[in-house]
Amino acid sequence: MDTEIINRPGGVCAPIGFRATALSCGVKDPSSPKLDLALIWSRTPAMAAAVFTQNRVKAAPVQLSADYLRADDPQAIIVNSGNANACTGPAGMEHARQMADVTAKALGIRRRQVMVASTGIIGVPLPIDRILPRIPELTTKDKSKNPQKAAEAIMTSDTVPKKAAVEVEIGGKKVRLGAIAKGAGMINPNMATMLCFITTDACISKTELQRATREAADLSFNRITIDGDMSTNDTVMVMANCRAGNRRITARGPGSRQFRDALTALMLKMAKKIVSDGERVTKLVEVRVNGAASQLDAEKVARAVANSALVKCSWNGNDPNWGRIIHAVGYSGAKVKPELVDIYFDGLCAAKHGIAHQNGTSFKELERIVAKRKFSIGIELNQGRGQFHVFTTDFSPEYVDFNRREYVAPAG
Amino acid sequence: MDTEIINRPGGVCAPIGFRATALSCGVKDPSSPKLDLALIWSRTPAMAAAVFTQNRVKAAPVQLSADYLRADDPQAIIVNSGNANACTGPAGMEHARQMADVTAKALGIRRRQVMVASTGIIGVPLPIDRILPRIPELTTKDKSKNPQKAAEAIMTSDTVPKKAAVEVEIGGKKVRLGAIAKGAGMINPNMATMLCFITTDACISKTELQRATREAADLSFNRITIDGDMSTNDTVMVMANCRAGNRRITARGPGSRQFRDALTALMLKMAKKIVSDGERVTKLVEVRVNGAASQLDAEKVARAVANSALVKCSWNGNDPNWGRIIHAVGYSGAKVKPELVDIYFDGLCAAKHGIAHQNGTSFKELERIVAKRKFSIGIELNQGRGQFHVFTTDFSPEYVDFNRREYVAPAG
Repeated sequence: MDTEIINRPGGVCAPIGFRATALSCGVKDPSSPKLDLALIWSRTPAMAAAVFTQNRVKAAPVQLSADYLRADDPQAIIVNSGNANACTGPAGMEHARQMADVTAKALGIRRRQVMVASTGIIGVPLPIDRILPRIPELTTKDKSKNPQKAAEAIMTSDTVPKKAAVEVEIGGKKVRLGAIAKGAGMINPNMATMLCFITTDACISKTELQRATREAADLSFNRITIDGDMSTNDTVMVMANCRAGNRRITARGPGSRQFRDALTALMLKMAKKIVSDGERVTKLVEVRVNGAASQLDAEKVARAVANSALVKCSWNGNDPNWGRIIHAVGYSGAKVKPELVDIYFDGLCAAKHGIAHQNGTSFKELERIVAKRKFSIGIELNQGRGQFHVFTTDFSPEYVDFNRREYVAPAG
Repeated sequence: MDTEIINRPGGVCAPIGFRATALSCGVKDPSSPKLDLALIWSRTPAMAAAVFTQNRVKAAPVQLSADYLRADDPQAIIVNSGNANACTGPAGMEHARQMADVTAKALGIRRRQVMVASTGIIGVPLPIDRILPRIPELTTKDKSKNPQKAAEAIMTSDTVPKKAAVEVEIGGKKVRLGAIAKGAGMINPNMATMLCFITTDACISKTELQRATREAADLSFNRITIDGDMSTNDTVMVMANCRAGNRRITARGPGSRQFRDALTALMLKMAKKIVSDGERVTKLVEVRVNGAASQLDAEKVARAVANSALVKCSWNGNDPNWGRIIHAVGYSGAKVKPELVDIYFDGLCAAKHGIAHQNGTSFKELERIVAKRKFSIGIELNQGRGQFHVFTTDFSPEYVDFNRREYVAPAG
């Protein structure tokens, strides 16, 4: 039986007891009123789980937050945009620590209860003096419920703020989950970071929250790819404050499936928002691989196709080019027998047994599919039972043009 | 002591006893006189070695040639452009076999002494009836020495024909090596194939020729990358006919180093021609990694940087963005410690110990380097002694635009 998941308004403030707001402190641009500093917190004790970038180069706030998370039960997230505080050395670590310090004081909690995130340019010192004096303002209005402002404040090259919330019933109690997110390095790689902050009033064990977070991220954020790059700052954080009054969810205990389903649905919603954002991307494409010798092989094939520059260029040109797709299948590293491979566009067969499907879909029909804003590519390997799917996009001339320049010579 | 290698005119006809010519048979375009069928052959017995694509999807001529090579000593290469004869099923295999058959008859040799190659569109049946009747014409003029025509006939999206020849002294005898090549799938991926045909009058054992070919390809064609794609048709073939009169070169015997040096130099020359070709590419960039824990780690880092869409976009915009480079270093999968990584542009330090180099190179200086048509990126990992380098290019908006459409609806 499927879990019933209801959409809700309110973003990260939909769950009971959560607050969020933002302001402009001039990290993005000292001469503009663009929001660039946000705070999300629970008014009552909470705890958290997180998934961080697998990149070996980790930004200072990522290192700090991972550290704090092991030591304490976080209750707040402070985040700036405009500067990633990455590749900034010991000074960067000190700056991240100061952000946590000042936030903790303003909220009357311990320093290690504050997680820190940053997104923006890499390798440029964080203008910490613009940030620290402004943090207390974020906490003064105790009733601050500005999820929209918070969503705007974490944007970099995103064209729209991203927020959502859902509700699910667990053991007779309504539990809410809310989220804000910003565009992926992968999709709007100018600033090269994907961030997602989730709040929930569920009562759940820390172990189970961490497990659910990892699983949901694997089924959502780890299934989107635009250019194959992986940021130094990618972060998914989930805070839970136990205000829903449900019986505590533990590993595989009652309600654990419902909670995971809701968390996965919410993350998938955010992941699709991220992929679809951007004027420079014109298509959302699901690449679905079936019949692989193993799940790993299915994943290799799906990612090879989803990341092939040639395949992505052809989609941009509304070209149903299955030749380029099978060619990516061939170099994916997976065990494939070309003469067994079938390729589908929105379920219609384009190639059968590795060659053009003779009495099947017409070229015109396939062309019509690829011209759509959303379509799926199905790849049947006929080798076994391994399956995998990813969401990806086309590659546009505008994408390259947009990414030609980012660097601004540091002032100092 | 370095081997002295002299440049020579004559392309594949520079070595004694080799012939080459080409004609237009209408595979590229029935209504144009574009050359699209070439023959290269030795007038006297020869043998050959080859390196084929690692793609699991192998075009029919690749499968056939690999097979013939194991069985016999090839003396001729027949090649068409305009159609890759890939993903064409049993009919495609039959067509490749017919090309070998007809060529063998015309030259009075065995079928398995003919290697076949094709380049062009994938998944469309080869118009074999336009090819077969024209093959005998290629052999009639026994004195045919048209390396230039042959180089033109294998072009697809290349903008210039590619040929070269070198001479080297082995045991007091002059030995010649000649080559023609066509642009990589990687660089001009419209047609998605890299081909290189080499002739030599060296006298060399088959084992040693195969080993030298593999080694030279690893140091040249396997060190270039544009978009990370790998074609179904990539082929490097070397034919040797023993006419130079040198003492037979055997494994590690006298002259083996000189021959390998010359073959590597020639392939590297062709590889650079391939990378540099194309109006849509504006830079040739060498990515050189030092100090990795192993050579494999060095290779992972070099390829991650060379294939990063974000890094390549920044080069196109003359942006010395070392942040994107270190970010690719971080996700390469290699063992790296960010705080040990140094990054250089043409030998000038941009980042030291993972952060901006404070009293080093000015931003303006770095900008001047990236604005050049050729420059190098040096990455020092300070972890060990592993080294690797690759040649790559930038990514231009025009590249994407150029690759938006390829497919032409098959006539039938």
